[in-house]
Amino acid sequence: MTGPDYGRAFGLWRAGTGQAWVDYTHHAFVEGLRDGSLPQQSYLHYLRQDYVFLIHFARAWALAAAKAETLDEMAAASATVHALVHVEMPLHVQTCSKHGIDRAALEATPEAPGNLAYTRYVLEAGYSGDFLDLLAALAPCVLGYGEIGRRLEGSTGPYADWCATYAGADYQALCHEVGTLIDGALLRRLGPGWMDLPRAETLQARFATATRLEIGFWDMASAPAPR
Amino acid sequence: MTGPDYGRAFGLWRAGTGQAWVDYTHHAFVEGLRDGSLPQQSYLHYLRQDYVFLIHFARAWALAAAKAETLDEMAAASATVHALVHVEMPLHVQTCSKHGIDRAALEATPEAPGNLAYTRYVLEAGYSGDFLDLLAALAPCVLGYGEIGRRLEGSTGPYADWCATYAGADYQALCHEVGTLIDGALLRRLGPGWMDLPRAETLQARFATATRLEIGFWDMASAPAPR
Amino acid sequence: MTGPDYGRAFGLWRAGTGQAWVDYTHHAFVEGLRDGSLPQQSYLHYLRQDYVFLIHFARAWALAAAKAETLDEMAAASATVHALVHVEMPLHVQTCSKHGIDRAALEATPEAPGNLAYTRYVLEAGYSGDFLDLLAALAPCVLGYGEIGRRLEGSTGPYADWCATYAGADYQALCHEVGTLIDGALLRRLGPGWMDLPRAETLQARFATATRLEIGFWDMASAPAPR
Amino acid sequence: MTGPDYGRAFGLWRAGTGQAWVDYTHHAFVEGLRDGSLPQQSYLHYLRQDYVFLIHFARAWALAAAKAETLDEMAAASATVHALVHVEMPLHVQTCSKHGIDRAALEATPEAPGNLAYTRYVLEAGYSGDFLDLLAALAPCVLGYGEIGRRLEGSTGPYADWCATYAGADYQALCHEVGTLIDGALLRRLGPGWMDLPRAETLQARFATATRLEIGFWDMASAPAPR
Repeated sequence: MTGPDYGRAFGLWRAGTGQAWVDYTHHAFVEGLRDGSLPQQSYLHYLRQDYVFLIHFARAWALAAAKAETLDEMAAASATVHALVHVEMPLHVQTCSKHGIDRAALEATPEAPGNLAYTRYVLEAGYSGDFLDLLAALAPCVLGYGEIGRRLEGSTGPYADWCATYAGADYQALCHEVGTLIDGALLRRLGPGWMDLPRAETLQARFATATRLEIGFWDMASAPAPR
Repeated sequence: MTGPDYGRAFGLWRAGTGQAWVDYTHHAFVEGLRDGSLPQQSYLHYLRQDYVFLIHFARAWALAAAKAETLDEMAAASATVHALVHVEMPLHVQTCSKHGIDRAALEATPEAPGNLAYTRYVLEAGYSGDFLDLLAALAPCVLGYGEIGRRLEGSTGPYADWCATYAGADYQALCHEVGTLIDGALLRRLGPGWMDLPRAETLQARFATATRLEIGFWDMASAPAPR
Repeated sequence: MTGPDYGRAFGLWRAGTGQAWVDYTHHAFVEGLRDGSLPQQSYLHYLRQDYVFLIHFARAWALAAAKAETLDEMAAASATVHALVHVEMPLHVQTCSKHGIDRAALEATPEAPGNLAYTRYVLEAGYSGDFLDLLAALAPCVLGYGEIGRRLEGSTGPYADWCATYAGADYQALCHEVGTLIDGALLRRLGPGWMDLPRAETLQARFATATRLEIGFWDMASAPAPR
Repeated sequence: MTGPDYGRAFGLWRAGTGQAWVDYTHHAFVEGLRDGSLPQQSYLHYLRQDYVFLIHFARAWALAAAKAETLDEMAAASATVHALVHVEMPLHVQTCSKHGIDRAALEATPEAPGNLAYTRYVLEAGYSGDFLDLLAALAPCVLGYGEIGRRLEGSTGPYADWCATYAGADYQALCHEVGTLIDGALLRRLGPGWMDLPRAETLQARFATATRLEIGFWDMASAPAPR
């Protein structure tokens, strides 16, 4: 099964992750968003956890900007922070607000274990490793949502807005930019044959671990009662 | 219920963690170690995961040495790394070896999600925060094992060695040293009234989160089949 | 001598830095910018080094975003990264371009030792310490340029544009925002009496060291031939 | 001119650094240690600054332990921390004590700018980059002192002890271990052809910059009056 064309590294890492990638992008939670069968309570639980997630995810992109080697890399990473803080997070605030969850309640969300595990893994990968380790750990979320968005494009029902956001031109453009950033960063540091270096295995493992943590996030979001 | 005297901060953080501290130190897994009812399979599963845990835990103590402000702090933190790498981990290797798990198998242990969540939380607390954040996140493991060891002292049965190790004079001395390190680091940075500063809440939260992750670790270790 | 009102911490840190603060803000290089006596060659040398400086300085602000504890802190830090990358650095490119130094030449500038010393000190303060250590090390540059700008306001001559930029409403507003960020971050973590804690001495030392590194930067920029 | 055989990477990086490597290892300060013409005042100034240097250098090796990918890498890095804190630094304390500088005075040494620049560069390279960046920045000090020690072996006069320490079997063994650590870390991550990857240029630049900072350290140590 072929995925979207978000670049060479994404194609390789996605293929190398095998069934876990399918389990993530075709998770029951995702199917529930698509056909509208997801209980609203689960959706709101997800949105609240995702808000907490995005705070740490934006921190991780900021760390990427700190670890960039070129001005272009820094600009791309900081543009993503900007988009998360000024576009994606306000959307969450707005959607939650429609459902009676105000910003204070949203910010007071207790972080679920599966949420904490994921974001700390990504941040620690970045701190202990380098720019590439961080990008490999960030990729499954950014690009996986792009792939899910494309698959759910045109969904009607209660979650049509969610589907439209990630299927939309803006988000898809972001995915292409991030894919280009990753391919450029790999080429710049490791050359065109990077996939044959031992380093490639570490990066593949980062991508695969983050994918499994995405599955854990959907599992957590699907659970009836938040911890 | 009063705990061991590992210093002022430990007493406060332990009390502030409430029921979660009891759930951690009196976990069914711990009771199984005490009365010998823990299945050997679970024990070996635990030892293997704990080996992976200790690698990252030693890395976190090394990070503490890097973030120390004084030579004494650095010496204390690096002595702990040394003890972990040259004493505690070889013990695991030896015990596992007796049960037919060789070093290669031990090192190839796939990291369970609850294991990963804990160690990355601790490391990230240290990288994003300062020396105090790191110590508060490290404390529940080091000092909780000391408290458990004291309670399980004199246990006979299949896990007598485990109990004797953490009840033993060497490990208890380490707990007192770590408690002293923490109290000294707090005093040096925040003064004698540190517990009344807003900073104290963050540190309490670090300790409490790490305690909950300890519970998750016992839960994971108790599960029949490792993921 | 009283300085601009960029907040409480700035006032205290500035006073606590004593003569070094005066040496920085009244450096011969600054006087040369004011009265136009600075040789153009020195100015261009400075601009090139400052461009390299700003890359690392933006990385340090990105690190601040990664280390922030609240969304507001993160938004403030990332807005500064954005301003540096998308406003201040393009201005340098434009000014240098007018004087025959193209972007490629600008980016190929070899980093002078006094430049490297300063930026690595700031970044390392942030990595090894916490958000407060980083802000204390970042403050002398941001706020010192604000103070210098105010003093040089209305200067005519060849460096009128430089003076107008830092005296201007936009830059002065940034200084007030950064001052507010610092005061809020201190209050949030250490409470209203933070200046009486031992921690205050470390932060004062961070500010004073960064101030001395600013003097070293002007010294380096004043030297006739770049190393 | 051929250097000591501390491994493949050292040979390449040393050659790639060219004249700067000669300027470092044959600095006037080194010649003064060799023939005894170095004023005692300069030597004591150097020892005091080197003590401050070693604190941060030990922190950098601790960071290397935190960033290690294998237990063997971690053990090697933490053994170096241990040697620095428990062997090399006590030697400085002892030598200074003979000359009337007690430990309190030693620890109160104000850090010279050239000292600060060097250690912060190394630490920041490690934090922003990965294990390899850190090792490349650490190598010139460890291995350069080994090369200098070999060249100064057998020197008599007032600095015979200094020469004997770095020429000695213990220190030379450490150099071989560090060289092996570096070669192994490169091979493990980048494969046998690492020197042909773009990554090699970054690492070469790290080594060369640290070498230039060593020259700056000797210059600082040679200056008649410490700042």
